[in-house]
Amino acid sequence: MGQSPLRLGIAGLGTVGVGVIRMLRKNAQLIEARTGRQVTISAVSARSKGKDRGVPLDSYAWEDDPVALATRDDVDVFVELMGGSDGPAKAATEAAIKAGKDVVTANKAMLAVNGHALAGLAETAGQVIRYEAAVAGGIPVVKALTEGLAGNEITRVLGVMNGTCNYILTRMETAGLPYDTVFKEADDLGYLEADPNLDVGGIDAGHKLAILASVAFGTQVDFDSVTLEGIGSVTIDDITAAKDMGYRIKLLGVAQMTGRGLEQRMTPCLVPYNSPLGQLEGGTNMVILEGEHSGQIVLRGAGAGEGPTASAVLSDILDLARGLRLATFGQPANTLVAAKSAASDTPAPHYIRIHLQDKPGALAKTAAILGEAGVSINRMRQYGHDEPTAQVLIVTHKTSGSTIESVREQLSKSSVTDGTPVILRIEEI
Amino acid sequence: MGQSPLRLGIAGLGTVGVGVIRMLRKNAQLIEARTGRQVTISAVSARSKGKDRGVPLDSYAWEDDPVALATRDDVDVFVELMGGSDGPAKAATEAAIKAGKDVVTANKAMLAVNGHALAGLAETAGQVIRYEAAVAGGIPVVKALTEGLAGNEITRVLGVMNGTCNYILTRMETAGLPYDTVFKEADDLGYLEADPNLDVGGIDAGHKLAILASVAFGTQVDFDSVTLEGIGSVTIDDITAAKDMGYRIKLLGVAQMTGRGLEQRMTPCLVPYNSPLGQLEGGTNMVILEGEHSGQIVLRGAGAGEGPTASAVLSDILDLARGLRLATFGQPANTLVAAKSAASDTPAPHYIRIHLQDKPGALAKTAAILGEAGVSINRMRQYGHDEPTAQVLIVTHKTSGSTIESVREQLSKSSVTDGTPVILRIEEI
Repeated sequence: MGQSPLRLGIAGLGTVGVGVIRMLRKNAQLIEARTGRQVTISAVSARSKGKDRGVPLDSYAWEDDPVALATRDDVDVFVELMGGSDGPAKAATEAAIKAGKDVVTANKAMLAVNGHALAGLAETAGQVIRYEAAVAGGIPVVKALTEGLAGNEITRVLGVMNGTCNYILTRMETAGLPYDTVFKEADDLGYLEADPNLDVGGIDAGHKLAILASVAFGTQVDFDSVTLEGIGSVTIDDITAAKDMGYRIKLLGVAQMTGRGLEQRMTPCLVPYNSPLGQLEGGTNMVILEGEHSGQIVLRGAGAGEGPTASAVLSDILDLARGLRLATFGQPANTLVAAKSAASDTPAPHYIRIHLQDKPGALAKTAAILGEAGVSINRMRQYGHDEPTAQVLIVTHKTSGSTIESVREQLSKSSVTDGTPVILRIEEI
Repeated sequence: MGQSPLRLGIAGLGTVGVGVIRMLRKNAQLIEARTGRQVTISAVSARSKGKDRGVPLDSYAWEDDPVALATRDDVDVFVELMGGSDGPAKAATEAAIKAGKDVVTANKAMLAVNGHALAGLAETAGQVIRYEAAVAGGIPVVKALTEGLAGNEITRVLGVMNGTCNYILTRMETAGLPYDTVFKEADDLGYLEADPNLDVGGIDAGHKLAILASVAFGTQVDFDSVTLEGIGSVTIDDITAAKDMGYRIKLLGVAQMTGRGLEQRMTPCLVPYNSPLGQLEGGTNMVILEGEHSGQIVLRGAGAGEGPTASAVLSDILDLARGLRLATFGQPANTLVAAKSAASDTPAPHYIRIHLQDKPGALAKTAAILGEAGVSINRMRQYGHDEPTAQVLIVTHKTSGSTIESVREQLSKSSVTDGTPVILRIEEI
């Protein structure tokens, strides 16, 4: 109470920026009650000044240049909502820190690529960078991990972190439509990024995973080591077959520390149909945090959209207004270690779908390939058929990633199978 | 780095106290890395000194009297894990605050009953009270609400907050056993409090709800106004019938601000079978936070047990070690308003189960009672029967609590029904 206002400079007036302004105006009284001070906007910046954005901007100073905005004397916190890993976002963030401002950002790309350097810069300057909105939209997952589970050794972080991919996979299943058709629909609905590969290629979700991995394991954020595989090759046949075996296919991010190093992967995986992840439909996100003592903490909510993302940005701003300050990745940047990156080799059951030639001994030959590689079969299902090939589904017992790769190779060149087998990891949760 | 250690005094060496000591010892290095300082234990206190608790206590001073522990010079944070709304827990907490200590507690009863007074005391003294472990065990729900959604107007908080009740209801369904049998099982397994009514009467969960309501709505915690109804009257017939209509029965806590005032209820309710709440089985807890901008945030995890509860206690301790300090109920105690308590009258669909006499016009008579009260029927199901009465299930459209009470009365005294109808609220989520 009686404290001076916290003054913001907001760069980027897209959906999220406008959402933040709306929320700050609507909830001004509530924010003052909760923080004991006013949170005001001094200045804003965006590409085009004239555009009607549906919120009144007249009372805020305008800056064409985000760097000029970030370094204004009447700005305490620079709110970066422009996006992009480098360029103006990074330049303005650096300028803000050097000018003694704290930074709140929703920019996952910038943090995944330049987060470690920026965290070091902030630490040296005595400033903080907050980024709750960068991961899983409105879900307070960064806070849950850095603070809520702070006393735990984290064993694994996993989740569905791209709503567009989850929407596409859900829609393929419910409507029985192929990937290309649903991709087109999603594009028409405006669900996809300008570069759709950011979504369907898993890059956007991979950025988020890399950030969470750094926080979870005290490692320097390392996006380049994330094994990335998008959803473009997921077929309706696999969605149906997976369901038949009790699973659903999700673009799943998994980060875990192993004896071999840090595994980070964002790949299509099978999860049990009746698990919280399996039940996740549409554009919703879910992150599961596994702490040694806390056990599994599941967080679920909207991963995108004006309201949820603005809510996350505001939580960071309100933390700063309340004087809650924390190192960017949860511990001093100079104590974060360079993680040794490990291949995705943690043993897991795998799902295999193949087409067998209708020849005597075809199944025996297939089983022999698995057996020789040391892969044992948990469940197998062959379907009746009128075609020259029969579809066979196999769920293996736990097998390492490298073993399953050799099986894939063997099966591909086998004389009894038709085409390349589909092999997907089944993540145990 | 280089900061002085944060020194704890821990009162109460039951499961949670021992868990906290174990976690602090095991993760000492990790805690120092994350907070930049050591967290040490100066002294402990419990009822019996001699007992072997499975952790070495020799290096800590022993106090028989928790007040003496709480006021020791070498204690910065008093960790209250004794329990009980009043008595030694409250006395020691007050003494700690007056002696300039911060307090971390897992004591929901103390906060639900005396939280407002204690928050005021702490505020005057410039100390803070933290209580993440008091609500939903290992799930960081207090943090999610006070900080993660701080920029939102909260519209509703709901959830399953007593694992024992959820275990009993789940077990009744899966094993087809009556309440009394499963209650006995749970008791034999040690799942029940010494006074089982704390669990099955909804009191424990009601304490948690009252605390969350205060944080959510900026009101003075008011446990006395929680509408409490335990699970003792839930029958296997209703569990089966609810499932048949697409629902599951849960002991559900709901707090929402209405035009009439604050509704707080902890009662058996129906929730959609396929919703996250409906899918919640066994001893797990789930809390759903609804923010105006964030949308629904679902949090799920272990609601009790050594590890999860100790994890929550540690998150509070680490916050204090990091200098993250917040008003007890999220805003200054003197700004919390005395909430006007409102009856549970928010309209909702209701589930009705009745036994109809096998007489012509019996169903018409029943329908007429509902119709005259202004209650319209959404779905109705009558079962074939060999008995003199037929079971009828009705799901109504939205109806207020007071209207449904008059329907209950009318049906009870109607000549065509047998016995008292069962009427349960269906919470829309």
